Amino acid sequence: MRAAVAGAKGHTMMALNDAVLDMVEIRRAVDSVLAEFLAAKSRSAPPQLAELIDTLRRFLFVGGKRIRPVMCVCGWCAAHGRGDPEPVLRAAASLELFHTFALIHDDVMDDSDTRRGHRSVHASLAARHRSRQGPGDAHRFGANAAILLGDLALTWSDELLHSAGLAPVQLRAALGVVNAMRTEVMYGQYLDLLGTGRPTGNVAHALTVSRFKTAKYTVERPLHLGGVLAGCSTAVMEACTAYALPIGEAFQLRDDLLGGFGDPAETGKPSTDDFRHGKCTVLMALAVARATPAQFSLLHALVGRPDLTEEQADSVRAVLEATGARRAVERMIARRCRRAMNALDHAPFPQAAVETLRQLAHAASVRTS
Amino acid sequence: MRAAVAGAKGHTMMALNDAVLDMVEIRRAVDSVLAEFLAAKSRSAPPQLAELIDTLRRFLFVGGKRIRPVMCVCGWCAAHGRGDPEPVLRAAASLELFHTFALIHDDVMDDSDTRRGHRSVHASLAARHRSRQGPGDAHRFGANAAILLGDLALTWSDELLHSAGLAPVQLRAALGVVNAMRTEVMYGQYLDLLGTGRPTGNVAHALTVSRFKTAKYTVERPLHLGGVLAGCSTAVMEACTAYALPIGEAFQLRDDLLGGFGDPAETGKPSTDDFRHGKCTVLMALAVARATPAQFSLLHALVGRPDLTEEQADSVRAVLEATGARRAVERMIARRCRRAMNALDHAPFPQAAVETLRQLAHAASVRTS
Repeated sequence: MRAAVAGAKGHTMMALNDAVLDMVEIRRAVDSVLAEFLAAKSRSAPPQLAELIDTLRRFLFVGGKRIRPVMCVCGWCAAHGRGDPEPVLRAAASLELFHTFALIHDDVMDDSDTRRGHRSVHASLAARHRSRQGPGDAHRFGANAAILLGDLALTWSDELLHSAGLAPVQLRAALGVVNAMRTEVMYGQYLDLLGTGRPTGNVAHALTVSRFKTAKYTVERPLHLGGVLAGCSTAVMEACTAYALPIGEAFQLRDDLLGGFGDPAETGKPSTDDFRHGKCTVLMALAVARATPAQFSLLHALVGRPDLTEEQADSVRAVLEATGARRAVERMIARRCRRAMNALDHAPFPQAAVETLRQLAHAASVRTS
Repeated sequence: MRAAVAGAKGHTMMALNDAVLDMVEIRRAVDSVLAEFLAAKSRSAPPQLAELIDTLRRFLFVGGKRIRPVMCVCGWCAAHGRGDPEPVLRAAASLELFHTFALIHDDVMDDSDTRRGHRSVHASLAARHRSRQGPGDAHRFGANAAILLGDLALTWSDELLHSAGLAPVQLRAALGVVNAMRTEVMYGQYLDLLGTGRPTGNVAHALTVSRFKTAKYTVERPLHLGGVLAGCSTAVMEACTAYALPIGEAFQLRDDLLGGFGDPAETGKPSTDDFRHGKCTVLMALAVARATPAQFSLLHALVGRPDLTEEQADSVRAVLEATGARRAVERMIARRCRRAMNALDHAPFPQAAVETLRQLAHAASVRTS
C-alpha cells in the first residue's frame, strides 16, 4: 500500500503509515527542487555564466540515483518526522548538489572522461572550449572550469540548505551533521588518494576508506540529517548508524566489484579505470594479500598503469577470481546486508521507514549499475 | 589614540571611540582563532591526515595580510557594533579560511609553484610525496591533494562561521552575505578564466572581473558581513558599498601592476606569471586597446606563452609603458581612491571606522606587496 500526502508547492510526500515510501516520488520532488534552484541561478547570473550553469544542470539530470536525498527523507520518516515536508525535501536536495560537487572534483582528480555514460564535466567543458576555439589548452581549461564549477556546486548546496525554510533549531542541528559529513568524505577521499597508485594488501586501510568515503557519507549522515530535522533522539541516531555502516560498506564493496567486473553499458564508466588508477579497493587488497608470488608480480606490474590494455585488465580480473578475492567480497557484502537487516529488526522506526530501508539495502547488494 | 577592550578568551578588541582600530591586534586575534581551530582539527582527525592539515596550517601562517577579516571587523565597527567581539572575530577568521581555499585552488588552476614567497600548496604536497617515494606521478598527487585540501578549507570556513557563537538572527544574516560573496567570487574566477590565454582590448570585461573577483569579495562583502553582525541599517550597507567598490577595484589594479612590475622578493611570486598565463587584466586590456599594429603583434605573440623568457617579459613591459597603459592604471587607482575617500566623508560611521578605512585605502593604493 502506498499513500501520499501533499507537501508545499504541490510536492507530494509519503504519509507515515504502514505503507512503504514512494522513492520515485521522492526523487521527482528532489529533482523539481534542484531544477527550480538552478533556473533561479541562471536568471540572476551574468550572461557569460550561462554555459557553466547549463553544464551543471545537464550533469545533474543525466542520471544519478538520488540515494542520499532518499536516505535523508528515510531518516526523517524513521524519526517520526511530521509537518510540512518541503524543508526536508530542500535539505535532501542540497545533499545531491553536494554530491555533484564531489563527483565533478573526483573526475578531475582521476582525469576520468566518462561519468554516467556521458562526458564528465571537465571533458564536456573542454569540448565546448575547443569547439568555440577558445585560447590555450582546452583540456586545461576544462579541468580548471570544472574545479570552479565543483566549488560553485558546493557553495550552492550550502545555499539550498540555508534557504530550505528550516527553523533555527533545525538549521543549527542540520549544519552540525552536514559539516561532519563533509569533513568525513574529504578525509576519505584523501585516504583513498594516499593509497592509490600501487596495490597493497592493506585490507584494513581499504575498509577505512570505504567507511569514510561511502558508508558514513552515503548512508549514515543523510539518515542523520533527516533524523535531526525531525528532532530525533539519540536512540534513533544510533539505530540509523547500526543500519547505515554495514549497508554503506556493502554499497562500496558492490561498487568495487562493478568497477572491476561491471558492464560499462550499465555502470556508465569503463571497467578498467579502477585498475588503471590503482585504486585501493578491498577487492584488490584481498587479492594482493592472498596472491602467490607470481600473482603478486602480475598485479604489481599491471595495477596502476595508466596505459593498461583490455587484455591486461582481463589478466588482473583472472587473479581477482583465482585468489578468491571476488568471492570473498561477495561474502562480505552478504554478511553486511544481513547485519543491516538485523539492525532494522530492532530499530525504533515506523514500519514505512523499515520497509523502505530494507528495500534500499536489498537494491544496494544486488545492483548492476 | 588607541584603546582596547578585552574580548572573550582573552582576545582584545578596539573600543568604538575616537581612536583608530588596532589592525595588528585584530590580525593577532584572528590568527589565534585560526590556530586554535586547526589544532582541534588535528587532534580529532585520523593520523594519516596530519600531513595535510599541517600543510594548511603552514600555508595560513607563512603570510597573508588578513585584509578580509580586518574589513569584517571594520564593518562591525562601522555599524556601531557592540557587545562581545569574540563571535565577530570568529566570523572574520572564517573569511581567511575561505580565502585560503580560494588561493589553493587558484594555484592549482594556474599551476603556480610559488605563493607568498614559498612553495604553493600543491607544490609542497608534491614535494612531500616525492620525498617519501609515494606511488604514481608526484605532480599529479600534489594537485589532487591540493584540490581536496582546498575543499576542506572551504568546508571548515563554513564550520568556523557556524560555530562562531552567533545568535540565530545573526547567523541567518551572515549566511546570506557569505553565500552571495562565494557565488560572486566564483563567477569572477570563471570570467577571469574565460578571458585568460589571449590578450584582448576588452577593458570593460577586465573591470567586471576585478569587481567580482576582488572589489566585492575582498572589501564589500567582508564589510557587509561585519555590518549585518551588528544588525546594521540599509544606509550603512550602502555606505560600505560606496567605499568598497572603488577601493576594491584600486586594490586589484594595484595587484595587476605588481603582477607585471612588482619585485618578486616583495610580492612573493614571479613577475612573469600574469604574462605567461595571459591574464585579462585591465592593464593588459588598456595596452591592447592603445597598441600600434607592431605593439599589438608583439603582445599577441608573447602574452599567454607558458615558456615566456625574462627578456620577452621585458619587451611586454616596454609596451605596457609605451602605450601609457601603466600610467593610465595609476590614474585609475588614484581616481578610485579619491572616490572611496569621498564616500567615507559622507558615511554614517563612527570616527574610528572612518580613520581605519582611510588608512586601509591609502595602504591599498601605495602597497608594494
